[in-house]
Amino acid sequence: MQKIITIAVDAMGGDGAPKKVIDGIIHHSNNNNNCFYKIFGNKNEIKNLIPSSLNKSIYEIFHTTEKVEGKDTPLEAAKRGKNTSMWLAINSVRQKKADIIISAGNTGALLVIAKLNLKMIENIDKPALSAIWPNKKGMSVVLDLGANIECNDKNLIDFAIMGSSIFKSLFPNEKAKVALLNIGSEEIKGNEIIKNTYHKLNQIESNDYEFKGYIEGDKLMNGDVNVIVADGFTGNVALKTAEGTANFITSELKKAMSNSIMGKISSLINISNLKKFKKRLDPRLYNGAIFIGLDSPVIKSHGATDYIGFSNSLTVCEKIVKGDLVDKIKKNIS
Amino acid sequence: MQKIITIAVDAMGGDGAPKKVIDGIIHHSNNNNNCFYKIFGNKNEIKNLIPSSLNKSIYEIFHTTEKVEGKDTPLEAAKRGKNTSMWLAINSVRQKKADIIISAGNTGALLVIAKLNLKMIENIDKPALSAIWPNKKGMSVVLDLGANIECNDKNLIDFAIMGSSIFKSLFPNEKAKVALLNIGSEEIKGNEIIKNTYHKLNQIESNDYEFKGYIEGDKLMNGDVNVIVADGFTGNVALKTAEGTANFITSELKKAMSNSIMGKISSLINISNLKKFKKRLDPRLYNGAIFIGLDSPVIKSHGATDYIGFSNSLTVCEKIVKGDLVDKIKKNIS
Repeated sequence: MQKIITIAVDAMGGDGAPKKVIDGIIHHSNNNNNCFYKIFGNKNEIKNLIPSSLNKSIYEIFHTTEKVEGKDTPLEAAKRGKNTSMWLAINSVRQKKADIIISAGNTGALLVIAKLNLKMIENIDKPALSAIWPNKKGMSVVLDLGANIECNDKNLIDFAIMGSSIFKSLFPNEKAKVALLNIGSEEIKGNEIIKNTYHKLNQIESNDYEFKGYIEGDKLMNGDVNVIVADGFTGNVALKTAEGTANFITSELKKAMSNSIMGKISSLINISNLKKFKKRLDPRLYNGAIFIGLDSPVIKSHGATDYIGFSNSLTVCEKIVKGDLVDKIKKNIS
Repeated sequence: MQKIITIAVDAMGGDGAPKKVIDGIIHHSNNNNNCFYKIFGNKNEIKNLIPSSLNKSIYEIFHTTEKVEGKDTPLEAAKRGKNTSMWLAINSVRQKKADIIISAGNTGALLVIAKLNLKMIENIDKPALSAIWPNKKGMSVVLDLGANIECNDKNLIDFAIMGSSIFKSLFPNEKAKVALLNIGSEEIKGNEIIKNTYHKLNQIESNDYEFKGYIEGDKLMNGDVNVIVADGFTGNVALKTAEGTANFITSELKKAMSNSIMGKISSLINISNLKKFKKRLDPRLYNGAIFIGLDSPVIKSHGATDYIGFSNSLTVCEKIVKGDLVDKIKKNIS
């Protein structure tokens, strides 16, 4: 018999919530049958969004009118108390009534409320925020993306272990290949913390991942490595610069394609290829950042994504629970 | 009478040197008539590459058989002594026999030999490597790109001043708008050094630039600011990640466009628009990194560019000398 995965869903976070969240759950449930959704939020709003055709045995609504606002500082969000939809969802994981928690709401608030409620994994000093990136050969896991501005070598080694455990949970049949983001590929490059991390990672024997040394920003998407480790400042700059560059190039491309009749005609002729191209780079495919290091992973959907993006981050939840991510980390860290 | 700009050119650095360099000079000289090229390198090789049609009064060859190799460490390069084409070219600037120096050779060697030979501008503590980036509205100057891994607030303020002076030299009619690369736009974001720099830049009154606060990676190419300041580690990661992302996206696009007959036909129909798109993103347009802070700027052409890219970096040389860049910096720093 298949194990049922229980996902605690904060229904009230992100643009277009709760509709986007509920539509995401419906879309996700249409494509699999092994999840149970605990939905936290305003019952009156949520009930109207659920069609009668949705199987009542796959969800339960936990009513609250309180919610974290997008503009709250983490402190303000925490002060709203234990009855916000976000807090209640996290608390259900704390009480082992759910396997994993997901929110499209305020990131800073989510990280702080998660840290207040959930225990750290033993021997991990700092939790990290990781995300999935496309590359020429598939996908990579990148961390930290901003949870920790300054990191020591122990933190970066923890990130390598946590990142490869995430990769193995998402892609069980592939080998995790870890690299440290640096400004050169030679051993002497970088600051002392990076060099110390390099030497220590080089000495660790692991069956779980292969350490490939340094990687520079221009090679991040070549796909030769699939777990990329950086402190939160560097990782955040890299992620956002990649987003900004992708946005810039596709906007220039759109201009080229639609500025003239010929451009429009040729785009029409080639519409299926352009769709494939667009799909390959669709950010919804890579939606679902993973806050890792606590005794339950916390999934952050992008606030601006739509229901398909939210559904994809529910798939991330599912794979991570199936992959026994936290147990993998515990095993590898010891 | 127009002032003649004397450019010291290391002819022996970069892929395809000296041919690429000489072809670049010829191309550049076809489009302007106010430069004199001092060409340092192997006379026997160089002479064969210069057509008899080239006006002999616009160049002079300074013969040497010694050169810095691409794989040299900076120390090895310096040990090759004072007769390499790179050293001789830098020395001619030191002796005020040229206005500016350019090389497509080994970057680390160029920075070290320049620092050995040229004086720092008074009150500047560290020289920085800057480059020109495209954005949605035009171009930006970004620095530091790797010359200084760790920077204090004084260094970052110097970079802001030097960066806006470069911008004003290249685009005399535009206003320099400076921002600090950070992981959030709120005042409280970032590490202590960045926060201190922010507060100090906010207090400086300058007619030469406007301080616009923090910028995140995803906004770098929006064009709302045009001078972007970061420490060398962060700047290098951002630059290379942008390069890698651009490369990834265009390779995916090429696949979409050429994987089928329909794709090929539609590309053909739309060839003029695609050419415009390609031209807009052509890295040769942005060739010519500027090593700044010494009493003469040092221009580094990308080693892998072709003669058109090299010619574009000669144009950067020209604009920087015309813009009195070093005097601008001296005026603004005091």
